[in-house]
Amino acid sequence: MRSSERSPDSIVEHLVLMIGDAGVLEGQDVSDRFDGWPPERALQARCIARPNSTEQVSKVLQYCNAAGIKVIPHGGRTGLSGGARSGADDIVLSLERLNRIESVNPVDRTMTVDAGVPLATVQSAAQDHGMLYPVDIGARGSATIGGTIATNAGGTRVLRYGSTREQVLGLEAVLADGTIISSMNRLMKNNAGYDIKQLFIGTEGTLGIVTRAVLRLRCLSKSNATAFVGVASFDNVLKLLERLSVACADVLTSFEVMWPGFVELVIAHSTHRNPLSGFHKFCVLVETDGSTAEKALEETLGELLEHGAIDDAVIAQNARQAAEIWNVRDDATARAAAMKPNIHFDIGLPQSEMNAYVVNLRTTLKDTWPNAKLLVFGHLADGNLHINISVGVATEAMLAAVDRAVYEPLSAIGGTLAAEHGVGLLKRDYLALVRGPDEIALMRKLKNTLDPNETLNPGKVIPR
Amino acid sequence: MRSSERSPDSIVEHLVLMIGDAGVLEGQDVSDRFDGWPPERALQARCIARPNSTEQVSKVLQYCNAAGIKVIPHGGRTGLSGGARSGADDIVLSLERLNRIESVNPVDRTMTVDAGVPLATVQSAAQDHGMLYPVDIGARGSATIGGTIATNAGGTRVLRYGSTREQVLGLEAVLADGTIISSMNRLMKNNAGYDIKQLFIGTEGTLGIVTRAVLRLRCLSKSNATAFVGVASFDNVLKLLERLSVACADVLTSFEVMWPGFVELVIAHSTHRNPLSGFHKFCVLVETDGSTAEKALEETLGELLEHGAIDDAVIAQNARQAAEIWNVRDDATARAAAMKPNIHFDIGLPQSEMNAYVVNLRTTLKDTWPNAKLLVFGHLADGNLHINISVGVATEAMLAAVDRAVYEPLSAIGGTLAAEHGVGLLKRDYLALVRGPDEIALMRKLKNTLDPNETLNPGKVIPR
Repeated sequence: MRSSERSPDSIVEHLVLMIGDAGVLEGQDVSDRFDGWPPERALQARCIARPNSTEQVSKVLQYCNAAGIKVIPHGGRTGLSGGARSGADDIVLSLERLNRIESVNPVDRTMTVDAGVPLATVQSAAQDHGMLYPVDIGARGSATIGGTIATNAGGTRVLRYGSTREQVLGLEAVLADGTIISSMNRLMKNNAGYDIKQLFIGTEGTLGIVTRAVLRLRCLSKSNATAFVGVASFDNVLKLLERLSVACADVLTSFEVMWPGFVELVIAHSTHRNPLSGFHKFCVLVETDGSTAEKALEETLGELLEHGAIDDAVIAQNARQAAEIWNVRDDATARAAAMKPNIHFDIGLPQSEMNAYVVNLRTTLKDTWPNAKLLVFGHLADGNLHINISVGVATEAMLAAVDRAVYEPLSAIGGTLAAEHGVGLLKRDYLALVRGPDEIALMRKLKNTLDPNETLNPGKVIPR
Repeated sequence: MRSSERSPDSIVEHLVLMIGDAGVLEGQDVSDRFDGWPPERALQARCIARPNSTEQVSKVLQYCNAAGIKVIPHGGRTGLSGGARSGADDIVLSLERLNRIESVNPVDRTMTVDAGVPLATVQSAAQDHGMLYPVDIGARGSATIGGTIATNAGGTRVLRYGSTREQVLGLEAVLADGTIISSMNRLMKNNAGYDIKQLFIGTEGTLGIVTRAVLRLRCLSKSNATAFVGVASFDNVLKLLERLSVACADVLTSFEVMWPGFVELVIAHSTHRNPLSGFHKFCVLVETDGSTAEKALEETLGELLEHGAIDDAVIAQNARQAAEIWNVRDDATARAAAMKPNIHFDIGLPQSEMNAYVVNLRTTLKDTWPNAKLLVFGHLADGNLHINISVGVATEAMLAAVDRAVYEPLSAIGGTLAAEHGVGLLKRDYLALVRGPDEIALMRKLKNTLDPNETLNPGKVIPR
């Protein structure tokens, strides 16, 4: 049955029967929400369904799938790729009432949670038990665990601990037809049959809706060390990374590089102090996590300073100084103020290709828009750069030209147009630049197998 | 067309036309091989096809899939679950001529290899470039990278570096119908579309045949430390793990626990010396990997000794002593000599359940077979135990009873019957003890989607 054959009222009434009055929001409760980040567009949807159990999610999906109604899953709506966007006839399925921390087990180092629990809540529950949930992103307060699983969120500690995929031991998901797949493994190693949770991690709600998860926790280390380093060339940035990786024995947690102009711009548009006494071509925020690494970090930086491989360095003496250093790296408000309007990208490319890529991109942009501003920073050790570009008030055609300037060169060098933010809607039509036709055909085949009616987050991720 | 309608000769002739004379082995060249480990059963197969390129693999699969011929992929045939077993009408597809290391990139820390390269060759190529490929298992000399990917091999460093899944950045695989899926990602982070390589990792050759891979390399740390520790109770084993995880800041690489009787048995059946001056209820082999961890290990063990949480400890003073300590843990020959005939298991279970599980298993076995021998050891920090059982010369019924004694209690405590060795043929019919019907139905659905004719490794992994 097509959705157009049903009156909106009868659909909402059906949902209320299934999940109760409190489970369904309509009218202004819908349009008061935004459909993504930045919060620019009011949410459109027939209603917001808010089931409070996996079984209720199953009922809603079974009904919608049979009735031909599209379902758009929502976590914290802080994704940056349009993955949460919906149409006026769609039903938004929010996991916000699935928000219990079921258990924390410090011996087995696991936490079992509902998908709607915010990332920050998981982080503090781990800390309360002397443990660490290592995934950390700026949107930690609003992003939900389910959303971070659906997008395989990365952040500033991937180098050391991996992305969200590596933290998920087990999960429960509901398929488009309402089938509940409970795969709540609690073990670090389990090769008993296909690891089917992988179907739901990083597939942005297109193959199933994650409702619960078992997360792996780590030991909280006794101390960490934060340093801010000025470096005169990209080659020396790579040398710094190489030396630290050996000397700090891979307890290196963050290696955040800021390209020329980044620190100057943030200092000019904020109240932060420059952690170093002058400006440098490249700046690197280094963090190690572990009681034994602090001394190694200090010694290595001292040695590199002596040999001229780095120009200046400061090591935070306390948590307040560490926070001040991170503020320079993290201040999105200062960047937005300086780069308005700001087109942001989340690309990945081999470290060996990075310098040439950025130099060429700057040339391409300046050739077309002499006043273009370009800001580059990112998780260099993960091969992941964030790029902010401003070309003034941009037409659709200009936006598309900027997209192409950023994405097209990635194809030849084995890069990616979505290192950690996902594809969603906004990058879908560029996907073929970085994935082959057989890969995309296989994605389509999986989608057809698990969601033949295209009920779940239709039109996202896979090019049409 | 069914295989029985074709004469064997014409099939072999077809294969020779596709991949050349050197590509096809018949007769004694087949029966001289074994079909798994231990090397007890002569290989049966119509022939062994040995393609030397991904394109040749594709041609062979396309032909076999159309002709209804079953294809059994072979790596090093050191799997322990019967995953390489074949029938007289099957074609074995060996990756042994796909054996090139294509490139090593120390800046991006990647290695690109053919699937047939032995694990040990990958390890030394990494070391030649000052890097580490961290997966390590006893069969390193014969196991191939393709085989370790197909089984998601684990080993002694999973705690620190993860299983094979975490080392594979990209791969190329051939589907049953000959479609080549090239997903040779080189990046640590890539969320551009579905991570389809996950379909081929740990699925034991049932969804596709891996032909090439891009592996992630790590920095080789300057030093490591190996210790052997005697502990009086299981609670103190867990305390040791907890203290080391904090003090050594997760540079802890191995935490191998030997249950009561293990060391005594190995010493009695080998020429190894006991690393400690006496015997202890539990022994733990600890290894840290990183220049800064050695001192922390020494201090922590000293402190625990002082507080009576451990009874004795020795730290290897050089590589020879470290090797001697590992020999006690690794000597499968001594174990086999003492436990003949030896039934081996590879189970996983939460650490918090381990002690009770082993105590109960011992009781169950002794109740039925008073002379039963039980040897327990394993990667405790990974939740992975290996169990050797001997009940004398065993009938099929006795073997099945031992299987049930080991596997059935795992169901209620969230355990697994295959932590790292996979399911293959030997554990297939027990899979439903540890995976739900919806999980198994989803595995079946994936199999039907990617290999509708059941061409690839039929009858393995998924219960019928």
